[in-house]
Amino acid sequence: MTITEPKPSYKYVGTRLVRPDGLEKVTGRARFAADLNIAGQLHAVVVRSPHAHARIVSIDTSAAEAMPGVKSVITGDDFPAVDSSHRQYDMCVNVIARDKVFYEGHAVAAVAAATLKQAQAAAAAVKVDYEVLPAVLTIDEALADNAPVLHSHMLTRGAEPPAEAASNVAAVTRFSGGNIEAGFAEADIVIEREFSTKPVHQGYIEPHACVADTGQDGYATIWCSSQGHFNVRSSTATLLGWETTRIKVMPAEIGGGFGGKTTIYLEPLAVALSSQAGRPVKMVMTRSEVFRATGPSPSTKIRVKLGAKKDGTLIAGDAYLVYSNGAYAGAGGMLGAMTVFESYNIANFGVEALDVVMNTARSAAYRAPAAPLTAFATETVLDEIAEKLGIEAMELRLKNAVTEGDLSTMGFPLARIGFVECLEAIRSHPHFNAPLAPNQGRGLAAGYWFNIGESSSATVNLNEDGTATVVTGSPDIGGSRASMALMAAEELGIDPHDIRPVVGDTEAVGFTDVTEGSRATFATGMAVVQACRNMVVELRGRAAKMMEVEVDDINWVDGHAVYVGNGDSASGSSGDSAAKESLSLAAIARKAKRTGGPLTATGSLEAHGAGPAFAVHLCDVEVDPGTGVVRIVRYTAAQDAGTAIHPSYVEGQIQGGVAQGVGWALNEEYIYAPDGVMENPGFLDYRVPVASDLPMIDAVIVEVPNPAHPYGVRGVGEAGIVPPIPAVANAIHSATGCRIRDLPMSPVRVLEAITAGGASANGS
Amino acid sequence: MTITEPKPSYKYVGTRLVRPDGLEKVTGRARFAADLNIAGQLHAVVVRSPHAHARIVSIDTSAAEAMPGVKSVITGDDFPAVDSSHRQYDMCVNVIARDKVFYEGHAVAAVAAATLKQAQAAAAAVKVDYEVLPAVLTIDEALADNAPVLHSHMLTRGAEPPAEAASNVAAVTRFSGGNIEAGFAEADIVIEREFSTKPVHQGYIEPHACVADTGQDGYATIWCSSQGHFNVRSSTATLLGWETTRIKVMPAEIGGGFGGKTTIYLEPLAVALSSQAGRPVKMVMTRSEVFRATGPSPSTKIRVKLGAKKDGTLIAGDAYLVYSNGAYAGAGGMLGAMTVFESYNIANFGVEALDVVMNTARSAAYRAPAAPLTAFATETVLDEIAEKLGIEAMELRLKNAVTEGDLSTMGFPLARIGFVECLEAIRSHPHFNAPLAPNQGRGLAAGYWFNIGESSSATVNLNEDGTATVVTGSPDIGGSRASMALMAAEELGIDPHDIRPVVGDTEAVGFTDVTEGSRATFATGMAVVQACRNMVVELRGRAAKMMEVEVDDINWVDGHAVYVGNGDSASGSSGDSAAKESLSLAAIARKAKRTGGPLTATGSLEAHGAGPAFAVHLCDVEVDPGTGVVRIVRYTAAQDAGTAIHPSYVEGQIQGGVAQGVGWALNEEYIYAPDGVMENPGFLDYRVPVASDLPMIDAVIVEVPNPAHPYGVRGVGEAGIVPPIPAVANAIHSATGCRIRDLPMSPVRVLEAITAGGASANGS
Repeated sequence: MTITEPKPSYKYVGTRLVRPDGLEKVTGRARFAADLNIAGQLHAVVVRSPHAHARIVSIDTSAAEAMPGVKSVITGDDFPAVDSSHRQYDMCVNVIARDKVFYEGHAVAAVAAATLKQAQAAAAAVKVDYEVLPAVLTIDEALADNAPVLHSHMLTRGAEPPAEAASNVAAVTRFSGGNIEAGFAEADIVIEREFSTKPVHQGYIEPHACVADTGQDGYATIWCSSQGHFNVRSSTATLLGWETTRIKVMPAEIGGGFGGKTTIYLEPLAVALSSQAGRPVKMVMTRSEVFRATGPSPSTKIRVKLGAKKDGTLIAGDAYLVYSNGAYAGAGGMLGAMTVFESYNIANFGVEALDVVMNTARSAAYRAPAAPLTAFATETVLDEIAEKLGIEAMELRLKNAVTEGDLSTMGFPLARIGFVECLEAIRSHPHFNAPLAPNQGRGLAAGYWFNIGESSSATVNLNEDGTATVVTGSPDIGGSRASMALMAAEELGIDPHDIRPVVGDTEAVGFTDVTEGSRATFATGMAVVQACRNMVVELRGRAAKMMEVEVDDINWVDGHAVYVGNGDSASGSSGDSAAKESLSLAAIARKAKRTGGPLTATGSLEAHGAGPAFAVHLCDVEVDPGTGVVRIVRYTAAQDAGTAIHPSYVEGQIQGGVAQGVGWALNEEYIYAPDGVMENPGFLDYRVPVASDLPMIDAVIVEVPNPAHPYGVRGVGEAGIVPPIPAVANAIHSATGCRIRDLPMSPVRVLEAITAGGASANGS
Repeated sequence: MTITEPKPSYKYVGTRLVRPDGLEKVTGRARFAADLNIAGQLHAVVVRSPHAHARIVSIDTSAAEAMPGVKSVITGDDFPAVDSSHRQYDMCVNVIARDKVFYEGHAVAAVAAATLKQAQAAAAAVKVDYEVLPAVLTIDEALADNAPVLHSHMLTRGAEPPAEAASNVAAVTRFSGGNIEAGFAEADIVIEREFSTKPVHQGYIEPHACVADTGQDGYATIWCSSQGHFNVRSSTATLLGWETTRIKVMPAEIGGGFGGKTTIYLEPLAVALSSQAGRPVKMVMTRSEVFRATGPSPSTKIRVKLGAKKDGTLIAGDAYLVYSNGAYAGAGGMLGAMTVFESYNIANFGVEALDVVMNTARSAAYRAPAAPLTAFATETVLDEIAEKLGIEAMELRLKNAVTEGDLSTMGFPLARIGFVECLEAIRSHPHFNAPLAPNQGRGLAAGYWFNIGESSSATVNLNEDGTATVVTGSPDIGGSRASMALMAAEELGIDPHDIRPVVGDTEAVGFTDVTEGSRATFATGMAVVQACRNMVVELRGRAAKMMEVEVDDINWVDGHAVYVGNGDSASGSSGDSAAKESLSLAAIARKAKRTGGPLTATGSLEAHGAGPAFAVHLCDVEVDPGTGVVRIVRYTAAQDAGTAIHPSYVEGQIQGGVAQGVGWALNEEYIYAPDGVMENPGFLDYRVPVASDLPMIDAVIVEVPNPAHPYGVRGVGEAGIVPPIPAVANAIHSATGCRIRDLPMSPVRVLEAITAGGASANGS
């Protein structure tokens, strides 16, 4: 179901083109990074720390080097030294540890050998002498007065007065507006609640993998799976101390990223090993390595306090957020601060957010990073206020929802947004008033994500036969190739099947930032539109040459150059203005050699005006009172897509966000032993939802065009993961009367709450 | 040694940058087509005709299909039908025969199997029932009255009156000027001689090879060695009846082409086999297949008659050329007609050229196609005229040489050319008057090649760190990557080591024609210059933004945006005009995200004004009077390069042309058995010159800038092969008194001539 504002009528945009990569993927022939094999390649294995926190006293690789088949062994010493003033210090020392290890699984060395077995055996023979240090494993431990300090250089950014001593607090972020004390004093009801969440993993099916081939000329080619191969190039160059031109990165198909493949882990190791060995080197993480050493979400402790008047008007809000980003500084707290109160007009508010470090894997982005956790807090407190005031949850949200022109938390006015439209889409959906069975409950929650723009490039090349190739630098995670083809088809006026959308390598297209922040269809789409419009200018010029008329007398209409002059522009006569002649794109392309040569055009831009995205979810659960098992029985998710270029993939993004959010809500968590060793690094013990855990999710596309994009696109990849946690929590409360504020809401915890009579572990 | 006209002083153009692909090539790590192996690939073998001329009665593939490991078997029936009206009929039926085979080695079927051995065994099991037809194996047989006609549709193009019956003459070309009878009547001396030459092979070290991978979605990727991957794409698409977008061609490194890789042989077979098998398919020709089934040069019979006045002025010329292009129509005769008299002003001339077909492999381009053979005729007849008139060979040429403004054979005036300068460079070279030892002789000869332009595209992308990637679509055969880097460095003003020149695949750059006609550095170089100039416009704009000044006040000087305004362009004051500020390219690139996004630029053009190239060679031979063995003892080659972008590779092209020309002159020839089976399809029996056969060739670069190119480039790849045959022939005459007019001038033939007392087989 799609709710659409009046919008221009498009010929191709908004249709459901079969994705160009679809058949290859369902038939298993698409090549992901681990599918690549190069003649002569070695296999490499990473030696990882068994300790959560330790000083590296020494590394002895001599035994490993002497083992059969071993061709190269590297440690941190094989990379240029970095100190904490380096702009990318954290990334560098996360990829390979130098003096200290900061989490169990931290890379300390790597070995390449002729076979994987030989590499594994040699990795086991690398002797690392550790001085084990006390590990910091929770937010409370990190903030404790006498906490071991992970990084002796870490002075809290944003502290006032400026921090003088190192601590585990990387940064403090504060926002405020109005008068918070006066606001709460005015409130008829004030509710304050505390929430806690664990790290969860993005859970992409494809593990990190790459093949690197370094020539004797010092140039390297990397094939890998990532959300941004230009970033792989620059990050790898940074670690190696190389110019970027020395590295070419070829994007493999990507089997999921969700933010977790916006950074690098293996590539510099593979290049260094290949360089030493003079052979290509292949590296593929095991699932255990993916869990232990790649980016989970932050864990959090969040306290939210909201004050409202009797009529439901929110009048004051106060939030205290602590985000642990694992072993190194991260942006979780800041992003939390930017999202916690963003959906509602609250005249008086204050937010303080801390980013802390502890001895767990360095966190990475995970779809709308930080926002699902602030939504968990705000949307469940809102639900409680609605309940206590006797106002419908929907009405409370409609009353306070931000609209165009309202000020954001950071003080700038919001552009045209579709939050109210999403709320209304849910309110008018049959689900909203459908009856519930016994032990069932219904939860409503909203979510916000700001989306981003960044740099994108695109090239359009017309082929001799009038077909077109559209090259972009954005890895295609969610169907962006199909979207690019549709936008190009609309601009050029040719059938999208005659357009081949391609993800170009780092030498095949202009610089393009990572596919993140829901930006690909927005920003890279704009680059495609720009390139196509440049192409149309060129096509009109060529057509004018062919027709021997002025270019100003040529319009581009539906894939054709159409003459609209009066037959003799010099005569000035008022003659017949009907089209004299028309040339199809293919006809112009066929004659390109005679009119000036090949038809190529590019577009490159730094995109601005990514439209904020809002989602409103309605979730029905059934709770088994005997076991605490929560089953999702119905789920409807409305989201403002701006304009859905390809509705199927918008729906897919919404459904995927829901599925991941439900997993986060109900089951997923990193479980650590007391020494910081992860106890569940595999899909048997770390439970992600599977198809049988979920009903068909009804995705409702709301279209409130983003004025900053030529087709009105706003990103859709992230907002859908924001509401599920509070939607499920509110539904559980509706079914059981229990408010659970600690994730995951696993059967054990739900059963405990039911047994305790509606009280959560941290009280209600 | 370089002779240079006064020219602009360049910083990078004209320097000897180490070629970017050099180290990888000398260390054996560069990947040529046969080095590619893809997981799961099959190996394919072509079934070839054992007969020179036969009708295919039936092909039974059932036994082959049932053999172990066999995954697919194809014949001509697996491709769309073509008839003789098809624009590329010859190419299509040459790649895989339909009703008839036209030469021994003609492909009739292909088999793909898990291993090469299995494929070979299955290929041998394909049963083809042939009706053998009489074979036409020489030009005389082809032209004989009752000759078997190869192609029943072949009516002679250009015949007057129009041909009504099919024959083996594909085309007649005629040019004339002045009054030929009057001209010869005016002549004081007239000499007419007849020449014959055999097919020779380009002799590239790398055999044709490709890997094709066709997905179930019907899209194919091809990795192959070619002189033009866009042509591989379009030709393969033509054979398969596909849109070009369905095919992506990745250029492997190329191990020589010399014109022989301007067409295709294997790629459509590999794609069709891969499509049927659902697996990647690899095909690599054996050397025997390369000889038997890929393009040798045409063979010829040429008659040239020249008339001169006593003072050496050429007054009349008549030429009758017959080129056999093998099994299908070709352009040999036409190209011969365009070159035979092009170097000299001959007021009255007539040329008639026939292109004929016979039952030998279809000829392909070979460096300055046709011209070495017309030069053989014209330059040896000239030598004889000089001898008989008692004029120095050099003076005769200087007297008649064409210069700027003279009319070409086809009637258009020549632009600035460097023929006289090349003659003078040889005349002033120490070699010219060096003494000769007994049994030694010295020969002089000139050569002309017109060079061509065609379509080229280039992209320049600046990276975040100020390095640049330059992408072109021209396979790098002779060092063109280095040349592109030098021209880009000159334009951008950055060190060429900070530029990565790349040969992009068919999706990574705009359409680019084949690397042929000595066009890469000329035409693709122009596209690079155009792209760089577009980039500089963009860079000036970004710098203006950064400095907050008008773009018109920014000049681009030596890699920097330099402010040259007066500080306030609005004020109009006559203030200090010194540079206020300057920003390096790297500084602008680093801030690209803040000034508009990525820095990319393209250039695409159809190049015109490829400057004609002239070469003048001086060759000393020593002839063993007892065996007839000819040894090259000294060789000096002067050639007009316009401007030598990279002098080392200009010298390499000149030296390579000489080496191949000497091989053609002395040893190389296709030897056929009476039934048309090639008897010497291998490098043991087909003798190309090796290093020990040749002295160091002294390459003299003459620089007469081509006015049509921004740096004055004219192509250098071909002209160098034109003079060697007559230079060697004239040197043999100088040493022995014998004029040999049939190639090759092998020891047997030279000894025969010496024994006969100076008479060639066809008389003097």
